[in-house]
Amino acid sequence: MLFNCCRHNRRLADAIRFLSADAIEKSKSGHPGMPLGMADVATVLFTKFIKINPEDAGWFDRDRFVLSAGHGSMLLYSLLYLLGYKDITIDDIKNFRQLGSKTAGHPEYGHLAGIDMTTGPLGQGISSAVGMALAERILNARFGDKLCNHYTYVINGDGCLMEGISEEAISLAGHLRLNKLIVFWDNNDITIDGHVSAANSTDQIKRFQACGWNTISIDGHNPCQIECAIKKAQKSKKPTLIACKTKIGFGAPTKCGTSKCHGSPLGAEEVAAMRKNLKWDYAPFEIPEDVLAAWRKAGERSRPLYENWKKEAKAAGKSFTDIIQNKLPKNWDKELNKLKQDAIAQKTKVATRKASEMCLEKIVSHVPEIIGGSADLAASNLTFVKGMKTVTKDDYRGNNIMYGIREHAMAALMNGMALHGGIIPYGGTFFVFSDYMRPAMRLSALMKLRVIYVLTHDSIGVGEDGPTHQPVEHLASYRAMPGILTFRPCDVVETAEAWQLAVESEHEPSILALSRQNLPLLRTSASENLSARGAYVIAGDSKKRRLTILASGSEVSLAVEAMEKLKEKGISAAVVSMPCWELFEKQPAKYREEVLGMAPRIAVEAASSFGWHKYVGDKGRIIALDGFGASGPADKLYQHFGITVAAVMKAAGELLKNK
Amino acid sequence: MLFNCCRHNRRLADAIRFLSADAIEKSKSGHPGMPLGMADVATVLFTKFIKINPEDAGWFDRDRFVLSAGHGSMLLYSLLYLLGYKDITIDDIKNFRQLGSKTAGHPEYGHLAGIDMTTGPLGQGISSAVGMALAERILNARFGDKLCNHYTYVINGDGCLMEGISEEAISLAGHLRLNKLIVFWDNNDITIDGHVSAANSTDQIKRFQACGWNTISIDGHNPCQIECAIKKAQKSKKPTLIACKTKIGFGAPTKCGTSKCHGSPLGAEEVAAMRKNLKWDYAPFEIPEDVLAAWRKAGERSRPLYENWKKEAKAAGKSFTDIIQNKLPKNWDKELNKLKQDAIAQKTKVATRKASEMCLEKIVSHVPEIIGGSADLAASNLTFVKGMKTVTKDDYRGNNIMYGIREHAMAALMNGMALHGGIIPYGGTFFVFSDYMRPAMRLSALMKLRVIYVLTHDSIGVGEDGPTHQPVEHLASYRAMPGILTFRPCDVVETAEAWQLAVESEHEPSILALSRQNLPLLRTSASENLSARGAYVIAGDSKKRRLTILASGSEVSLAVEAMEKLKEKGISAAVVSMPCWELFEKQPAKYREEVLGMAPRIAVEAASSFGWHKYVGDKGRIIALDGFGASGPADKLYQHFGITVAAVMKAAGELLKNK
Repeated sequence: MLFNCCRHNRRLADAIRFLSADAIEKSKSGHPGMPLGMADVATVLFTKFIKINPEDAGWFDRDRFVLSAGHGSMLLYSLLYLLGYKDITIDDIKNFRQLGSKTAGHPEYGHLAGIDMTTGPLGQGISSAVGMALAERILNARFGDKLCNHYTYVINGDGCLMEGISEEAISLAGHLRLNKLIVFWDNNDITIDGHVSAANSTDQIKRFQACGWNTISIDGHNPCQIECAIKKAQKSKKPTLIACKTKIGFGAPTKCGTSKCHGSPLGAEEVAAMRKNLKWDYAPFEIPEDVLAAWRKAGERSRPLYENWKKEAKAAGKSFTDIIQNKLPKNWDKELNKLKQDAIAQKTKVATRKASEMCLEKIVSHVPEIIGGSADLAASNLTFVKGMKTVTKDDYRGNNIMYGIREHAMAALMNGMALHGGIIPYGGTFFVFSDYMRPAMRLSALMKLRVIYVLTHDSIGVGEDGPTHQPVEHLASYRAMPGILTFRPCDVVETAEAWQLAVESEHEPSILALSRQNLPLLRTSASENLSARGAYVIAGDSKKRRLTILASGSEVSLAVEAMEKLKEKGISAAVVSMPCWELFEKQPAKYREEVLGMAPRIAVEAASSFGWHKYVGDKGRIIALDGFGASGPADKLYQHFGITVAAVMKAAGELLKNK
Repeated sequence: MLFNCCRHNRRLADAIRFLSADAIEKSKSGHPGMPLGMADVATVLFTKFIKINPEDAGWFDRDRFVLSAGHGSMLLYSLLYLLGYKDITIDDIKNFRQLGSKTAGHPEYGHLAGIDMTTGPLGQGISSAVGMALAERILNARFGDKLCNHYTYVINGDGCLMEGISEEAISLAGHLRLNKLIVFWDNNDITIDGHVSAANSTDQIKRFQACGWNTISIDGHNPCQIECAIKKAQKSKKPTLIACKTKIGFGAPTKCGTSKCHGSPLGAEEVAAMRKNLKWDYAPFEIPEDVLAAWRKAGERSRPLYENWKKEAKAAGKSFTDIIQNKLPKNWDKELNKLKQDAIAQKTKVATRKASEMCLEKIVSHVPEIIGGSADLAASNLTFVKGMKTVTKDDYRGNNIMYGIREHAMAALMNGMALHGGIIPYGGTFFVFSDYMRPAMRLSALMKLRVIYVLTHDSIGVGEDGPTHQPVEHLASYRAMPGILTFRPCDVVETAEAWQLAVESEHEPSILALSRQNLPLLRTSASENLSARGAYVIAGDSKKRRLTILASGSEVSLAVEAMEKLKEKGISAAVVSMPCWELFEKQPAKYREEVLGMAPRIAVEAASSFGWHKYVGDKGRIIALDGFGASGPADKLYQHFGITVAAVMKAAGELLKNK
């Protein structure tokens, strides 16, 4: 080869540039600016440093790579193709952004091997990468350097850094001293609306330093500087930010350095001029042999490490391989089943958040994969249970994470830990503050991750803290969100069932909406996990009922009380507990019809009525709360808002009269 | 008086301490730590600096005060009582946290004069305060020092600083050099779960400096240092952070300095010991005469400034007083009405985001109160229209704000601007990213603020960007949220109507969910604002219909197309456009019944079916999208997900057959 090191790197980088520009051109849609600007950095990283195996994209001890600036997806697709990942062909590149193609507009986890995370919503990538880097350290502490010892690399732009979630995550990464996390900042001075300086003048270097990071500034088009920076970063005792001064759309003669190349195809003329400019005499999607060969060779760089790891993993045996294959320990929930039996025997009356704590004590001691935490509400969420140990920068051998008052980062870190594998994360906050982490929760659902949200204080039952702390619309908002299970258990047994389902839900995140206040035990048998059906007749006479009362969580006991009063009046009713609408929807139609019955229906829930019409039907009644809550003792609030036995009785009277 | 300056301040501060501790004790619920810790700072601020008039709590040119750490509400209630606000009595203090009381668990805007903002959800207060400070500068630039020239003060704790939203807002405040913003950080080293250092090691001083702030560190219990710091801050050319080293629960002998006094009553014994410790020989809720007199005198400090301002305001005349009284200019929407007529005449076919831009051009030129912006998507949201000028740190005489990639801060700043008064804020981003600002949107609704959310790219119509960019559950999630109007207009006329309603909606925020793709003009008349009714028959034969098709936004034209096809087959149908469910729900039952009709119903919406059962009824059909979207051209996605005329025809066939 005639190229010197830098020219060689440039030529390999140009392969990324032209695959990206041509694919975007062909699809008439996409974001060329970032792939062109960061191609040099990516080339040095992927040809000289990153530890991967294109033949085994899911290799557990690979370095993770998160394209936090997900709009630059063609950078990642180009890399995967060039490195020789089997799951992607040149036709996939040509099909960029077409329906059903693996090369979606933004990288979609699960669509294509080699994508470590779905990105696009800004700030999520860098934040979940912190979770990956934390998972790596936790598992390294458990299994040692030979089994788990890798870097997490991130590319992000100004967008990710302006999003508030990134501050939460950066601050946590610095606090936990995650020194194997290396972030490349595509410091190109451009955002969609123009020059960064129009909207931002934060000194990012100083900001990262304030958060305990190592920082390095380089020319992002100079391969030697890039290489040197990565070497330094790898040796740092802190997480590292490498600020890469780049030109957005590098190579595009007229659009380079402007926001014009951020989010639209360059145009045929500009791409032609770019070919001249970069001396790239090849047709679209044609990669010269020497370049492809060099890339493919780079893809094989880590083969010896891989083979060695395979041996070590085998030697480590089942305790390690089960964990990386997401296999739960046998009989992991045996004690949970016992807990249910005991609760029934003792008629245990506790808040479901307390029930959750009781469950967690049994789970944590049997399932080492479980890593819990809370956003500074451990004492309220009851998420820190006996036998747990907090992870610190000096000792990663714990299973509790103190997230601080950072709900959004907590959710994103949990996504990162679940993506990393070997960990089943749960995290707690008040249900109402789940709003703060909604973008990350949506990604849990979209990526089909086993993440468990422990959301306590689930209604006006919160009491004195008032409407800012009382969820009203939250149940509806998650029931409407695709791909997430929303549990609202009514007693200890249902709480344990929800935990069993959540821990076993390998491809769907779960929400556990739990009460602040005590709730009586309602279940009389725990022989079947009835919550798995989503809804079921929990009390009353299913066959002879003249009325059905539907409820969830804390209102199920209220419904049962009403049912008993109706019985005194000679009216037979049944109560349907609906802990999880999503699972109920998955039941056969016949089961659903049987549960809901033909009798008139009343729904009662201390939350928005939104969505309940589906179950009560045209003639049913809904006792709910369609405005905000208020500050006052919880029992008075229930009276005030008319979520009462009397209200159910009144509705029942009217419905039966109308009949 | 025998007290020297410091002892005098301490005695006034102790009045806050005991009102707080005793009220929390009586209500058996509340957060004493912060009021006790920050009483000295608050006393200096409110007796020596703050410009207010307890007789006119809403004085436009008063200094604003935001208790961002809203759980310390008793600090604020104590201050308002001591300063002599008429709206609060000692009985209100005694009724702390009781149902219906003005002294709610957290400060609730509108419950009690003198509360400048509802706080409690952490990070919101400091971020909205940035909006207040920005509003002040914008109106100062317009009206001059004599009419608008005041400070915005904030008290926040570590929680607010750890929340990501605060970084977005702090960064914006520094960028816009809002030097009349002064933030007191209650640097007490304690959070709910224990010592701050367990979850955070960020150097806050350095972080604020990186964001372009002036910083001062003081002993928060030393009145001289506090006074000196405020004086310096007032002269700064940058926003100022005053880091106040304090002891949480100052004065409580055993719990002071620990998380035990953060969120629970101190207990009778501790309060008694605190009385001894601070030499406070008065009964609960008793304030010694000299102390009360000193406080009341402090409340009158700014009277001369107030009287002077009244004169100036009168002299300024209607153009000023209308603005501060939220009176829109006469005939402000005349050109909007013309725009509707023109659109009908020309059958204008544009995306509703484009229609929104056309409306904005007419609005912005007639309503100076309107201040717009976008979170770095101006060119996509079409929120920056002809004649607008961007606000910069060097020139606040603009009406466009470049928020950067900071959706959450944008929403919070808008809340702050609306609270400040004199401004009607709107802000744009993609509908899907409204998730990022949901906690602030909830506060817009709870505080009943006129804030307008321009949310474009409202469905799978987004196309190639894929599921991370395609809202699915968002319509349902806002329809379920109390107190916010969710508009999804179908054409230019409905878009103009939505804008009219949003601008005139003085006590309710609005969402405008707008299409990326072009939509045909459907309305044939604009003589009445039909969107004001929430839903109405837009096409077809209302009386002879055998079928009703319900739709919103981009699917209304699809419904009309289906209706026409049905007509060809001799089946009479009507199409109901439902641009705003919330307004429809406010209509008389008779109107609602007439619109929905007795014929079988089909709903079609390119979003979650969640919530639609209410309108289609037990026998109706819903053509919707209950999973996530996908990446691909928009028209192909509609086909792929079956949101098509054919699907409506099929459902119609089945429904009519069943009949």
